[in-house]
Amino acid sequence: MGINSLKPQPHRIVHSTEHPRQRLVDITILVLVLISIASSLVTSTNLLSDTWRGHLNTSVWFFVVIFSVEYAWRLAIAERRWRYVLSFYGMLDLFAVLPFLLGAPVDLRGIKIFRALSVFPLLGATNYVIAMRRFARAFELAREELVLFVITTAMILYVAGLGIYYFEHSAQPHAFASAFHSLWWAVTTLTTVGYGDVYPITVGGRFFTFIVVMVGLGVIAVPASVLASALTRAREEEERAQRERME
Amino acid sequence: MGINSLKPQPHRIVHSTEHPRQRLVDITILVLVLISIASSLVTSTNLLSDTWRGHLNTSVWFFVVIFSVEYAWRLAIAERRWRYVLSFYGMLDLFAVLPFLLGAPVDLRGIKIFRALSVFPLLGATNYVIAMRRFARAFELAREELVLFVITTAMILYVAGLGIYYFEHSAQPHAFASAFHSLWWAVTTLTTVGYGDVYPITVGGRFFTFIVVMVGLGVIAVPASVLASALTRAREEEERAQRERME
Amino acid sequence: MGINSLKPQPHRIVHSTEHPRQRLVDITILVLVLISIASSLVTSTNLLSDTWRGHLNTSVWFFVVIFSVEYAWRLAIAERRWRYVLSFYGMLDLFAVLPFLLGAPVDLRGIKIFRALSVFPLLGATNYVIAMRRFARAFELAREELVLFVITTAMILYVAGLGIYYFEHSAQPHAFASAFHSLWWAVTTLTTVGYGDVYPITVGGRFFTFIVVMVGLGVIAVPASVLASALTRAREEEERAQRERME
Amino acid sequence: MGINSLKPQPHRIVHSTEHPRQRLVDITILVLVLISIASSLVTSTNLLSDTWRGHLNTSVWFFVVIFSVEYAWRLAIAERRWRYVLSFYGMLDLFAVLPFLLGAPVDLRGIKIFRALSVFPLLGATNYVIAMRRFARAFELAREELVLFVITTAMILYVAGLGIYYFEHSAQPHAFASAFHSLWWAVTTLTTVGYGDVYPITVGGRFFTFIVVMVGLGVIAVPASVLASALTRAREEEERAQRERME
Repeated sequence: MGINSLKPQPHRIVHSTEHPRQRLVDITILVLVLISIASSLVTSTNLLSDTWRGHLNTSVWFFVVIFSVEYAWRLAIAERRWRYVLSFYGMLDLFAVLPFLLGAPVDLRGIKIFRALSVFPLLGATNYVIAMRRFARAFELAREELVLFVITTAMILYVAGLGIYYFEHSAQPHAFASAFHSLWWAVTTLTTVGYGDVYPITVGGRFFTFIVVMVGLGVIAVPASVLASALTRAREEEERAQRERME
Repeated sequence: MGINSLKPQPHRIVHSTEHPRQRLVDITILVLVLISIASSLVTSTNLLSDTWRGHLNTSVWFFVVIFSVEYAWRLAIAERRWRYVLSFYGMLDLFAVLPFLLGAPVDLRGIKIFRALSVFPLLGATNYVIAMRRFARAFELAREELVLFVITTAMILYVAGLGIYYFEHSAQPHAFASAFHSLWWAVTTLTTVGYGDVYPITVGGRFFTFIVVMVGLGVIAVPASVLASALTRAREEEERAQRERME
Repeated sequence: MGINSLKPQPHRIVHSTEHPRQRLVDITILVLVLISIASSLVTSTNLLSDTWRGHLNTSVWFFVVIFSVEYAWRLAIAERRWRYVLSFYGMLDLFAVLPFLLGAPVDLRGIKIFRALSVFPLLGATNYVIAMRRFARAFELAREELVLFVITTAMILYVAGLGIYYFEHSAQPHAFASAFHSLWWAVTTLTTVGYGDVYPITVGGRFFTFIVVMVGLGVIAVPASVLASALTRAREEEERAQRERME
Repeated sequence: MGINSLKPQPHRIVHSTEHPRQRLVDITILVLVLISIASSLVTSTNLLSDTWRGHLNTSVWFFVVIFSVEYAWRLAIAERRWRYVLSFYGMLDLFAVLPFLLGAPVDLRGIKIFRALSVFPLLGATNYVIAMRRFARAFELAREELVLFVITTAMILYVAGLGIYYFEHSAQPHAFASAFHSLWWAVTTLTTVGYGDVYPITVGGRFFTFIVVMVGLGVIAVPASVLASALTRAREEEERAQRERME
C-alpha cells in the first residue's frame, strides 16, 4: 500500500462501492454473518431448550446455501475472476462454505466476520474509515519495531524457559518436565497471563521469576510505546496532507 | 457536547450549582450515598457481630426513605419535570429506590455512586473539574479509535476462540466443550486476566496461545496509545483556548 | 514542593549533604539497612541450616541497637528536634526500632528501605537525581488525573461487583456470597491480576465479564497515558529552565 | 557506545561484515542454531515417536562438533584472540559447547540464539538495523528512569510483602509463612501475573491488595511512558542527524 493511497480522501471514501445493488448485498450478507455467528454461539451455551437448539442447528444449512449463492454471484459479476478467487475476501467466502459442501464436520462460517471491517465504508461513516486508515498506516510505520519486538520477545522467552528449567526441574519434574514445558511457563508469565498451571516453588526459581517479570514489564511496554509514536506520526501525515489539499 | 462547552471556564465552574440550598442538599446526599455503600459493604463481610449486622440491615430503610424524599423534592423543584425524570441523574435517583418500594429483593442504592462524579464542581475544586473535562474531551476525540478497538478485539477473540477449539476440543472435551467455552478462554487469555479455569494442554494449543498473546500484547496496547495521543491533543486545545481568552 | 525547587541544579545536588561525617553515616546506615533486609529475607527461606538461622535471628539485636543509636544521634544533632521527629525519615527511623524496644513481635526494620531513595544524592549521581526529580514533577503534574483515575476505577469496580453478584450469586452462592466477595472478584479481574479463586461460570456472568475487561483495558491504560504526557511536560520544563540558565 | 556511533549510516551498515566468506559462515551458523533450537524443542514435546526422538538426541553431537569447529575457526582468524574470547559472542560460542566437552549434562546450545540479533546486518535489512539502533538508543536515553523504576518497584514490593504478611499470616500460616513467601505474593500480584497459588482471604488482606494493585497499575505504567518518550527523542535525534548529512 503506497503512502499516497492512505491520504484521507473523504469525497471518494463514502461511495467506494460503486453499484448500489452490490452495496445492498454487502450489507445484507454482513447482517447474515452476524446473525449466523450469534446463533452458533447461542447454540453452544446451555441457554436454549433442545428443540430450539435443533432448529438453530438446521438453520446452518440456510446460511450455507445463502453464502454459496453469494460466492457464485460474486464470481459471476467479478471482472477478473481469478483475482477475486485469490483475494482476501474471496478466500474468506470460499472457506466459509467449503467444509459443509465437502461434508467435513468443521464450521468455518465464522471467518466471514472479517467482512465486518468493510461495514464503515458501506455505511459511509467517514470518520471511522479515516481512523481505520490511520491505524493501518500506524502499523505500517511501526512494522520494523513490531517485528523486532516479536523476535526479541521470542529470544527472552527462550532464555527464560532455559533458566526456569534449570531452577525448577528437580523440584517439579512433572510441571517443568522439558524445555517445551518451561517455555510454556515463560509464555504465560512474561505476558502476565499467569494461568497458574505452572509456577516456580523453589527460592531460586522465584527470584528468577522476579527478574523475568521485571524484564517482561519493560518488554510488553514496547508495543504501547511504538504504537503511540506511530499513531502520532500517522496523524501528522494526515494533517499535512489536508493542509496541502487546502492550499 | 460541543467543543465550545468543553473549554475550561474556571469562573463559571465554581458556582455551577446556582442555589446554595440545592448545593447543600447535593453534598448531604453524596455523603449519605457513601455511608450507605460503606455500610452495605461492611455488612457483607464477617467483620461484624450479628447484632450490628441486624442494625445495619434495618438502616437500609432509613436510606430508602431519605432517597425517596430526595427524589420527590428534586421532582418538585425541577423546572421541566420530564426532563429530570429522563435525565441520567433522574434515572439513578429513581432506580436506587424503586426495588425497595416495589418490594423486590434487590439493593440498587449503590448506583447513586455515580453522583460522586459531581463532587468536584460542588466543592469548587477547579483543577479537578478541568481534568475531568480533559478526560471527557480525550475520550470524545478518541471515540472512533476506541470503537474500532472494541470491534477488532471482538473479531480477534472470535478467531482465537475458533482456533483453540480446533486444537483443544479433543484433548479437553469438557473445558473446551463448545464455541462459547473457547470464546471464554479467548477473553481471559487475550486480556491477560488468565484465571486458570481453562488453559491449553496440547502442543498445538500452546503454540497457538503464544501467537494469540503476542497479538494480544499489541492489541491491548492500543487504548494506551490512543488515549495518550488524545489527552495530548485535549491539552493543546485547552492551552489554545486559554491563549485566545488572554488576548 | 514549589516548581522552583524542582529545577535541576546540578552544582547544588552533588553536595546536598553538607557535613562529610553525616554523609558517611548515611551511607553506612543504608548499607546496614540493605544487609538487614537481605538477612531477614534469607532467614525466611529454607536455604539455611537451623544453626545459621539462629545466628541471623540473634543478629536482629545488633541492627536494633545500631538503628536506635542512629536515631538518638540524629535527634542530638538536629537543629530543630521536633521537625526531625515528625519528618518522613524521622518517623521511619523511629518505627523501625520501636516494636523491638516495646517487646512487640513485629519486625519493622524493613521500612527503613525508603532511605534507599536518598542513595543517589549521597553518591553524587547527578543524572539519577535529575531523573528522580523529573518523576516527582511528573507525578505532581499528573496528580489530578491520577486521583480521578482512582475514583473512577473505584466506581467501576463497585458497579462491576454489583453486576457480577446479580449474574453469579445463585449459581455460585459461596464464591459470590455477598457484595464484598463480588467486589473482590472485580478487583482481581479489572486489574487483570486474575488469581482464579473466583470467576464466573454462567453465560450471563461471562458475557458481563467480557464487557468489564474491555472497559478495564481502557481504564488501566489511563495511568500510562497520563504519565507519558506528564513526563514529556516535565522534561520540557527542564529544558526551558536549562536554556534560561544558559542565557 | 557514543552518540556518534548511533547515527544511522546506511551506506556503512549493509557491508558491516567485510569478508564475504565470514558472512557466509555467520548465516550458516545462524541457520544451524535455529535448527538446533527447533530440534531440541520438538524433542521435548510428545509429538515424535521414540525412534525419531533418538535420532534427534544423537544429532546433538553433530551440532556440538560444528559449533566447536566454528569456535576454533573464529579463534584462528581473530586479529586479537583474547578480545574475541572475552567478547559477548566469544563467551556465547564457548559456553554453548563447553558443557558437552566437559561431559556435564547441561544443554546450553540455545544461548547462541543471541546471534540472531546480528541477522539483519548480515542480510542487509537497513530499515531493521536502523530500528534496532533506535531501540538501543532509546534504552540508553531511558537508562536512569528504568533503573529508578526497578529500585522503586523493589521497594514497593518489599513494603507490599510486609503488609500482606501482617494481614494474612494468622489466617493462612502456610501460604504466607514468612517474609519471603509474602514477597513472592507481592511479585505475582503487583505485576498482574496472578498465578493464583497465593492470594489473600481476609477482609483486611483483600482491601490491602486493592491498594497494592492500584499503586501497581501506576507503577507498571512507568516503563511504557518512559520508553514512549525515549523512542520519540531517539527518532528526533535521527532526523536531525539526517538533516545535517543532507546539508
